Amino acid sequence: LLTPDEFVARLRAEGVGRYHDQHPFHVRMHAGTLSRGDLQAWTLNRYYYQTRIPIKDALIVAKSEDPAFRRMWIRRIADHDGEASNDATKATKATEATEATKTGGLALWLKLAEAVGLDRDEVASCRSVLPGVRFACDSYVELVRGSPLVVAVASSLTEMFAPDIMSKRIAAWAEHYPWVGAEALAYFEVRVTRAARDGEEGLAFVVEHATSRALQEACVGALVRKTEILWHLLDCVQLSRAGAAG
Amino acid sequence: LLTPDEFVARLRAEGVGRYHDQHPFHVRMHAGTLSRGDLQAWTLNRYYYQTRIPIKDALIVAKSEDPAFRRMWIRRIADHDGEASNDATKATKATEATEATKTGGLALWLKLAEAVGLDRDEVASCRSVLPGVRFACDSYVELVRGSPLVVAVASSLTEMFAPDIMSKRIAAWAEHYPWVGAEALAYFEVRVTRAARDGEEGLAFVVEHATSRALQEACVGALVRKTEILWHLLDCVQLSRAGAAG
Repeated sequence: LLTPDEFVARLRAEGVGRYHDQHPFHVRMHAGTLSRGDLQAWTLNRYYYQTRIPIKDALIVAKSEDPAFRRMWIRRIADHDGEASNDATKATKATEATEATKTGGLALWLKLAEAVGLDRDEVASCRSVLPGVRFACDSYVELVRGSPLVVAVASSLTEMFAPDIMSKRIAAWAEHYPWVGAEALAYFEVRVTRAARDGEEGLAFVVEHATSRALQEACVGALVRKTEILWHLLDCVQLSRAGAAG
Repeated sequence: LLTPDEFVARLRAEGVGRYHDQHPFHVRMHAGTLSRGDLQAWTLNRYYYQTRIPIKDALIVAKSEDPAFRRMWIRRIADHDGEASNDATKATKATEATEATKTGGLALWLKLAEAVGLDRDEVASCRSVLPGVRFACDSYVELVRGSPLVVAVASSLTEMFAPDIMSKRIAAWAEHYPWVGAEALAYFEVRVTRAARDGEEGLAFVVEHATSRALQEACVGALVRKTEILWHLLDCVQLSRAGAAG
């Protein structure tokens, strides 16, 4: 068995080294060289990933026999689905932090989609999502569905790296894509603190419950698979934009 | 396709006719002829059923693509898991209605178990649950896991009949088993209003989303199966108590 420190170091190393912030398309996003069409393609396709989050989180909740764990984890579902109606009217108030919290991540993402010039309903329908993006995101749900609880939780540990990427994204978009508008970045903003909290909770759970070398390896494997999913999403978006006019 | 009225009438008829309030063991419970040992056996075994509820509800949440539906349904998970820590200290305050709400149904049931003279940890461990009870309750989870969303929701429609049975149970226990104590009946009390709400929400969803005759029949079938699960639980408890000393 790896010691907790060794296990955490291993998870971090495998995760950091493969995290999608290093993907060429993502590097270009933060460097400010993506076109409006590129940002739209990313926003539309990434929305499908966002819609899978509450579904995979509900599957994780269903795997636990512990009310305390379930109480902790259903908050993630509420984070994305919101606590009040997610309709467009409410979403326009998302600049207030409290309102953004109630609105939920999915509605905030649709607000972002509108801000980059997409049609809200078109994005919400997911009908234009690239096939490869759909395959990758669906495979995330199936990975969670088919894994023991601790391994399913480990697949969420990319959250550990999210606060940093979100902070950088807010700054990069404000600098390079000011036409999007600061208020549309509310999703990235709420994720800075939530992802930090989610990453810490997830890591603590995984360290405590991966009680064999085999489970530890399965957890590392799930995190690696998750990074591949996020990476492939960007591969697909990048490929679809190769040679596009803008 | 059955009209909404026909469909609702069919669901009610199939459900009412098979509901476990007519099971001989349950009739004896409300008539006041169960022994302390009988009540203990029922309370201990029924707890395993209770523990399956948030798990099957999380599976239902995972089947939905609609944030509004998921927001509605995760409240059921919170109803059973509670909103605060479910520890024994908190559960002792369950006489206050607001506290009972926060405490959650599982903790309230363990309070009931203590009041009928059982060891809380023994009940919570589920290690003494009768095999047949376990089979039946696990089959409920698997029924939900393997069914389309609308059929999974239909399996919850026994909630339509729960307010009545809970109201009668509170009166019957107060009259016939006063040694249990009124404050231990908080679980039954919170379910009166919650089950009414859950039954109405579930029925409205099923009527709207069972959009083919085949789906309507599958919904009726799921409700019938659910009544069989509840009935079998009582069969097993009754059989285990046959000839018991008290």
